This record gives sequence, structure tokens and C-alpha cells, in this order.
Amino acid sequence: MTMMEPDMALAESLFAQLRADSFDGVGITRDTYGPGEQAAHDLLAQTARDLGLEIRRDAALNLYLTLPGQDRQAPAVMTGSHLDSVPRGGNYDGAAGVVAGMAVLAGWVRAGVRPARDVTVMGVRAEESAWFPVSYVGSKAAFGLLDAAALAARRADTQRALSDHLATLGGNPQAVARGEAALRPEALDCFVELHIEQGPVLIGEGDTLGVVTGICGSHRYRQAQVLGRYAHSGAAPRGHRSDAVVALATLIARLQDAWRDMEAAGHELTLTFGQVYTDAQQADFSKVPGQVSFCVDIRSRDTNSLRQMDAHVQGIAAELEAAHGVRFDWGATSGSQPAIMDERLQAALHAAADAIGAPSRSMPSGAGHDAATFSNQGVPTAMLFVRNAHGSHNPDEALDMRDFTAATRVLGQVLGLRAGIARAGAPIAS
Amino acid sequence: MTMMEPDMALAESLFAQLRADSFDGVGITRDTYGPGEQAAHDLLAQTARDLGLEIRRDAALNLYLTLPGQDRQAPAVMTGSHLDSVPRGGNYDGAAGVVAGMAVLAGWVRAGVRPARDVTVMGVRAEESAWFPVSYVGSKAAFGLLDAAALAARRADTQRALSDHLATLGGNPQAVARGEAALRPEALDCFVELHIEQGPVLIGEGDTLGVVTGICGSHRYRQAQVLGRYAHSGAAPRGHRSDAVVALATLIARLQDAWRDMEAAGHELTLTFGQVYTDAQQADFSKVPGQVSFCVDIRSRDTNSLRQMDAHVQGIAAELEAAHGVRFDWGATSGSQPAIMDERLQAALHAAADAIGAPSRSMPSGAGHDAATFSNQGVPTAMLFVRNAHGSHNPDEALDMRDFTAATRVLGQVLGLRAGIARAGAPIAS
Repeated sequence: MTMMEPDMALAESLFAQLRADSFDGVGITRDTYGPGEQAAHDLLAQTARDLGLEIRRDAALNLYLTLPGQDRQAPAVMTGSHLDSVPRGGNYDGAAGVVAGMAVLAGWVRAGVRPARDVTVMGVRAEESAWFPVSYVGSKAAFGLLDAAALAARRADTQRALSDHLATLGGNPQAVARGEAALRPEALDCFVELHIEQGPVLIGEGDTLGVVTGICGSHRYRQAQVLGRYAHSGAAPRGHRSDAVVALATLIARLQDAWRDMEAAGHELTLTFGQVYTDAQQADFSKVPGQVSFCVDIRSRDTNSLRQMDAHVQGIAAELEAAHGVRFDWGATSGSQPAIMDERLQAALHAAADAIGAPSRSMPSGAGHDAATFSNQGVPTAMLFVRNAHGSHNPDEALDMRDFTAATRVLGQVLGLRAGIARAGAPIAS
Repeated sequence: MTMMEPDMALAESLFAQLRADSFDGVGITRDTYGPGEQAAHDLLAQTARDLGLEIRRDAALNLYLTLPGQDRQAPAVMTGSHLDSVPRGGNYDGAAGVVAGMAVLAGWVRAGVRPARDVTVMGVRAEESAWFPVSYVGSKAAFGLLDAAALAARRADTQRALSDHLATLGGNPQAVARGEAALRPEALDCFVELHIEQGPVLIGEGDTLGVVTGICGSHRYRQAQVLGRYAHSGAAPRGHRSDAVVALATLIARLQDAWRDMEAAGHELTLTFGQVYTDAQQADFSKVPGQVSFCVDIRSRDTNSLRQMDAHVQGIAAELEAAHGVRFDWGATSGSQPAIMDERLQAALHAAADAIGAPSRSMPSGAGHDAATFSNQGVPTAMLFVRNAHGSHNPDEALDMRDFTAATRVLGQVLGLRAGIARAGAPIAS
């Protein structure tokens, strides 16, 4: 196997360079369609050039780095992940999947292996919806599926439109709007995305790897508010108040019970109020708050669970409107569809993990991933989670390089299997 | 009585000029120890000059406008209120009490009345603790009672120290720090403060006037926070979260029940969470919130009720720390003592209201007022509330001039009674 091993020295060097390029003083910022994400794309493209891989970009500036196969017409094996990060995030969320793919291809290139079919590492654009309020911008655009209206979405910090950001970097927003597809499902053999877990399950259970059974869809209210009536905190008696904060607090508290009850009834889902804030200008410690903004993020692998929790949200809010004399303004909804992972790929990942003695477990993905777009297009799709400390979306994201090496070996094994590389240096088709 | 009537034309002109001087584009801003409050003091001093009143200022720049009595050594009758406002507040909170006093004195001056003892209208500084986190700055300083440490408090917007603001306007922070008193309790016959109600009770009950029975004290946490742990909103299961917002929401919701139960047991109090906000940099719709800031304002006429609610706050928070894996950081506390109003003055105010056919009712003051400082110094003290629409501390504060006229007549009647003016143009002592 030695000749076939992934090039982990390259992987460590890529992580170090990614960190150096995107450290913001607190954490890692690779801003979607901005200098941070672009620097990562430039680094990966240069690495591919050094390895002699084919380099391609589509209208949305997704990056495709390909080791050509013997049959260039056969459906390609694809891996990869996104290269952007949340603001002040960590170095591994997204990047790990691209770096792992490059380490696998570098190992093959150096061993002189030529696969039976193309193997492509994709650097996906714009996965983190902290920047633009749209899910899976890059992978949807690759399939020609991005809603043209999404190009008008504005980035949270710059307030510039997605089309503007894309054009500035040399992309083609018109082609994206027309739905021009760089990827066709029938031209893909499979998509396997390696990603850090982002949660505490694997570390808690003592497993190195997670094989994803399905990816949660989401239902979101990103700009909701409760409207009540400001009043003097000492002069307005309890029964005369329309207190926006009390109404919201009661909603949040009651939904915890609804969540627990749904879990007890077998549903798997999460419910999060990530941002809550009264008006900085109008709210005061001596006023009953007349307004409060908040956002809601419901996630589940099961569309029915999403719908049922949303019904709880709306039902309890309607009761509170009557009881508290407030009004809920929900704003626009956004979200994504759940996705099911391919059974055969799941089995192959478990088998490869067993073969190197890495404990693996089946688990759902609470977070959304580009793999969901591939799955929903009918591409056989899988995800491999690698355990990490301190979750993700924060500067403390931590990934043990021994765990990452195990994951990359498992990824290489399964990609090699699909690409017709039975064992070291011996392509099936050669 | 005609000759003795308050000068309501002057009152209306003062309100108009105050509004013109302090309109901020949205509401009224008369910033404590800043240009807004100072403009109001300048206007009132000029008005006093025009009426031939004595004008005095103390080290804290409180303003004293005096119609000299026949016996200058006799304890003085005093009225007045504060001239500052909250940011984007209304035109009447505070100012109404000073304008009413001036209208009464102007009526007497024009009628040629000389009272038996001095009658002083006080323009109190710095009552609104939205600016400096200290209660009753001006009235405490007048009695030499302001804690010297308070002079280091910083104004919420400018971040400049109270002593600095005071010195800039020509005040004497050293004298304030030494506790030099401009007012001695034994030199005051009484203090009567007219103020808009700020609440919905009088309008709801169909009464024009409220005679205050007692003024609420307060117990406050102005910079509290809940500290939990940020995590991915999809990847962190329910049982693995330390969600700061859920913990705070549960606290707020459970305290509503505690409040209702305390009221049912006979307590009178208010409980307000006026500001609640997650971190603008770190919180995100796709993160479990690891931190949330909030403030708490508890008010009651009864120290025991303040203590009991605070015990609920602390007790429930301690339970939530254990249940949710979070920590409550309460920051500094602030607050003020409750105050009881003088029975004889209350009776005189009711009698004067009855005499002009203005419906009046006894009621507590949920809001704090400078009158509490006078009462706690042993000065016979009363407050007259006049009904107003839309509460206070907002741009929509509304005061019907007919109601204000009735209130000013009642105030004039009681001040005249205490100052030895039995009836129109006929001082008792003449």
C-alpha cells in the first residue's frame, strides 16, 4: 500500500498555508466570493498545477482539479468540499475535504497511477450561508440550479449583490442566471465529501470516523421580529404590557418542551435561536421592550419533522400574540431539502475504515453540506465525517492529524475502488 | 381666583421652545449634563430673569428660581422636577413639573402676590439614568448626598466621566465630591413635584390626576450576561448544548409566573428585561448562541418585594446554570430606596382637585422620581401625576393641555396654601 498512500505532508503544508492566508487576528475568515475564499482557490489551483492536474472553473468559479482517467468519457469520480468559512471560523470546516482529495490525488500522481476514469477534486464556492442568505450557492450553480433571484442577494457585511461579487472575481453571473450547468448528474459516477464532524458525537463515543446516513434539510426564519409596545418599566403594570422580549422568551421556552416531546416521539431535529437582539437605539433598561429581532433555524433529515416543528413555532406564536398583545413578523423563509446518502458508498466507507482499524459509526449530518445538492440530483453520494474537538464555526476548531490521516486513507480507498484502482499501482483497467 | 390663575400661555410657550431646542429628528433629547439639558436650564433661567425671580445654582448646577417670601428665614416651599430626558424621549417627562411651577409663580408675580415664605421652583439635573448609571444625581447632590464614586461614572454615549461633563458646564465636581449641600431638610417646608403619569392607569380609569402614595425603589442588573458555549446549530444535539439564549428565555418565562404569584400574594412590583442581545460579531443564525447580554429592572414601593423578586431571579438562575451548563454573570447592581409621600400633602392635593372638579385617585409611582430623595431626607413631600397618552420615554408622549392646566391649578393651590397665600391676592401674613 505504501506507494498508494495519500501525501499527508502536502496536506499539512496546505493547512498551514490556508491558515496563514486567512487568519484574521481571532480566527479564520475565508469570505465567500471575497479575498479570503479566493486566496484558498488560488492556493489549490497552484498545487494542482504543480501536480500536473487539469484545472477547470465554471461560471460560478467553482474549481475542478482532475487527474485524467484512461476513459475520459466514463462518468467521473468526484470528491471535494467548500473553501469558504464563516467569519472568525476555523481552518478545517470545508477545507479539510478539498485538502484530503488533493492528498489522495498527489499520492496517486507520485505513484504513477492512472485511474480507469477521471477523478476530480472540486473546490466548491459559497457554502457558508453566513455571507449570503442562500444555501449551497456553489454546488447549485454547478448543476445550473441556482435560482436567478439569488444573484441579487446581498452579502451580510458588504451589502453588495452576489452577482457583483462574482463578476469582480471574473465569474459569469449571466451564465449562472441562465442556468448553464458545468455538471451533469449522468456524467458523475459518485460524489464523496470528507468533512469534520462539527459536533461532539464522535469524540463522545470514541469513534474516529462517521459515515453519514442523511443530511438535514432546514427551515429558517433569518429576520423575524416581535413587535410590542415600548412603555416605562416602572409605570406600566403587568397586565398593561405588550412586552416583545417576554413574548419571545415564552416562545423559546415553550418550544424546548415541544422539541423534547418530538424527540420522545422518534423525531430527529434541532431548533436554534442563534441571534436575539433588542433595538440598540430604542431599547433601554428602563423601558418595556417594544421590539425584538431574532432568527430561527430548524434542521432535520425528515421533511415531516421540519414541518411539524414549524407548526409548533407558528401555533405557539399565534397563542402568544393573543395573550401578550404583540405581533410576530416572520420575514422571509429560507432553507434546504434533506438528502439521503447512497447505501453502497456507506458500506464501502465502513469497510475501508474497518480495513485500517479506524472505528466508524453511522450518523446523520445535522449541518447542511454540498453533498445534499449532489444527492438530490441523483448522484450516488456519501459523506465521511472525521471527529474534531470544539465543534466548528469558531476559531477553536481542532483536528488531530492522526484522525485526518485515517479519514484521508479511507477516502482514497473508496475513491480508488470507484475509479478502478484495485490496489497499489495496479489500475483495474491497465 | 382669576388674578391667581397660573400663566398657561407662558407654559405653552415654554413647552414649544423646549421642543424646538431639543428635537432630534425623531423625539426629544435633552442629554444629562450636555447641550440638550443645558438649553432647557438656560431657557428657564431667562424666563425667571424676565419675571424678576431670584436665580441660584449649586455645585451640581441644579437651578433654583425663587419668588422671595416676606420671611426669608422661614422654611421654603419648593416645587420642580428634572429638565433632562431619555434619548429620543418626549417633551413632558420632567419638564412638565418645572413649567407648571413657573406658570404658578408667573401668575403670582403678575397678580402682585408676595407669599409669606420663599417659594422656589427647582430645575433638577440628571434624573434620567439612561445617561449615567446612577439614580437621582441632581437631587442627591443638592443635599450633599451624591456618592463621590458616582462622579467617575461614564455617560453611556460619550464615555466621559460625570465630573468631566459637570466641569465643562461650569459646575464644581470637587464641592459635590466633598458633599457640600445646597439644600438642608430643615430649611424646606415641603417639596411637591408635578409629573406626567408615564403609565396607562389614569387614562384607563378616567381620572385626570393621580396623588402619589409612594415612589418605587429599584433593584437593577444593568450589564448581566449568560455564558454558554457556541456550537453548530445543526451538529450539536439537544442534550449537548450550553445554549445561553435558551437559558435566559427560560429565566424570563419562569419569572413571569413568579411575578404573577407575588402579585396574587399582595405584592406590588414590576419586572422588566429591557435589553437583550447576542454578540453582533460572534452570534450567527447557524450557531447555538454561547453568550447573551441582558438587563433586569425590578421596582417596588416595598423593599421586601424587591428582595423577594431578586431571590426568585437568583434562585431560578442557579437552577438553570445546573440544568443548561451555563453561567450567569450579573455584573454590578444599582438601584434606589422606596419613598413614602406625606399624608397631609396628599390630602391637600385631593381637596384642591375636588375644588376644581378634577377627578383624582391615589396611586403608587412605579417610576423613580427626585421626590424620593426629598422624602428620604425627611422633607414633607408629595407628587401630583397628570394623565398622559402613550406613556413616556418615547417620542409619542402626549399631554392634553386641559389636563395640564387642571394639574397646574391644583399645584398652585397647594403651594399657595403652604406659602401662606389663603386666596387670590391676599397673603395670610399681609
